[in-house]
Amino acid sequence: MKPKAVVLLSGGVDSTTTLAIARQSGFETYAISFRYGQRHQAELEAARKVAAFFKVKQHLILDVDLSQISGSALIQQSGISPPKNRPENEIGSDIPSTYVPARNIIFLSIALGWAEVLGARAIFIGANVVDYSGYPDCRPEFIEAFQTAANLGTKAGAQGFRFKIHAPLSKMSKAQIIKKGVELGVDFSMTLSCYDPSPDGKPCGSCDSCILRKKGFAEAGVQDW
Amino acid sequence: MKPKAVVLLSGGVDSTTTLAIARQSGFETYAISFRYGQRHQAELEAARKVAAFFKVKQHLILDVDLSQISGSALIQQSGISPPKNRPENEIGSDIPSTYVPARNIIFLSIALGWAEVLGARAIFIGANVVDYSGYPDCRPEFIEAFQTAANLGTKAGAQGFRFKIHAPLSKMSKAQIIKKGVELGVDFSMTLSCYDPSPDGKPCGSCDSCILRKKGFAEAGVQDW
Repeated sequence: MKPKAVVLLSGGVDSTTTLAIARQSGFETYAISFRYGQRHQAELEAARKVAAFFKVKQHLILDVDLSQISGSALIQQSGISPPKNRPENEIGSDIPSTYVPARNIIFLSIALGWAEVLGARAIFIGANVVDYSGYPDCRPEFIEAFQTAANLGTKAGAQGFRFKIHAPLSKMSKAQIIKKGVELGVDFSMTLSCYDPSPDGKPCGSCDSCILRKKGFAEAGVQDW
Repeated sequence: MKPKAVVLLSGGVDSTTTLAIARQSGFETYAISFRYGQRHQAELEAARKVAAFFKVKQHLILDVDLSQISGSALIQQSGISPPKNRPENEIGSDIPSTYVPARNIIFLSIALGWAEVLGARAIFIGANVVDYSGYPDCRPEFIEAFQTAANLGTKAGAQGFRFKIHAPLSKMSKAQIIKKGVELGVDFSMTLSCYDPSPDGKPCGSCDSCILRKKGFAEAGVQDW
């Protein structure tokens, strides 16, 4: 029987490639996505397509209303808009207004609860520090500290079961992630990266995420869309 | 200006005393409670009363649907009932069926996100290892590991702001907690401890939590209700 893995799936390039890696590494995959008040609900549609494409064992979409606690530009109700048309060298040089407070900790915690119920030791997250150096909850030190807390703070951990948080993209560039995805059969036209898509799910082309995607595909020599 | 603290408030004896301690320690208090699919929704009513009694600056009740991931007897939809009439020495000797996977990690993470937005360094939790040795996410080692992850995985932490997780009840017995609460002016008739109250919020009297409460009040020499 294959070991189980819970994969955080947003429906973007990174989490989709992460899911492909988890599958290729021999795990039976369980995907989890969150409806957290994000501006880009179309990403959940992308997550659904990706989960179906990779035939995950189960895809859970869970409601966590972060709009009540957040002042992030990714949250619809925040009234803040994601920055547009920033030069590449500015992206990732600071902690962006699209940072959602403690988001990865919150998502990892819920994934951990599900992993415990499923009996899954592995949790996969597409955290990446190369293009997103501005997000502290993507740093390997954080991932490691969270893993320690996870093993101390769960019944399974207390009973000697060891959870492992896998962040396979941690040190890859966007171009490397895209190449890896293509190699593993990812059809990136299913994915959505934009922070501010149109109501029918079309990317804006000018937010940080669209700019990094464009650059990544160009560098990887892969045709997008 | 008083420093701010976010307090996890379930409306039971422990979290209510914790809120009183946070207040007495000079913090401006922000309470957070969760609607997570629990069997005992009446506890949210208790939390509301307690928050009003202590005039917290803001009381947030947040939806996180753990029923989708949980197999705990505390979750209404689990189909499992909390154990009744267990002898005292059995309570806390194992990890009980009322354990909700990763619950404190999830709640602390969300409290952390809110603390970050509020600019609150302090997060208070009524975790306690004396009566609840069976819950791994109440152990001081876990609280400390979570604090490390919190400081590595947030924008505030990355910028040198230090979060501190306060668990002032950590090593107190239920009787000590009750005495402390009385000393700080807590009216415990507002609180609800029961895992399985009647629809109008009356405690069952026979679940682990009711038994520990009864024993605690008796030992403290305080009249309950």
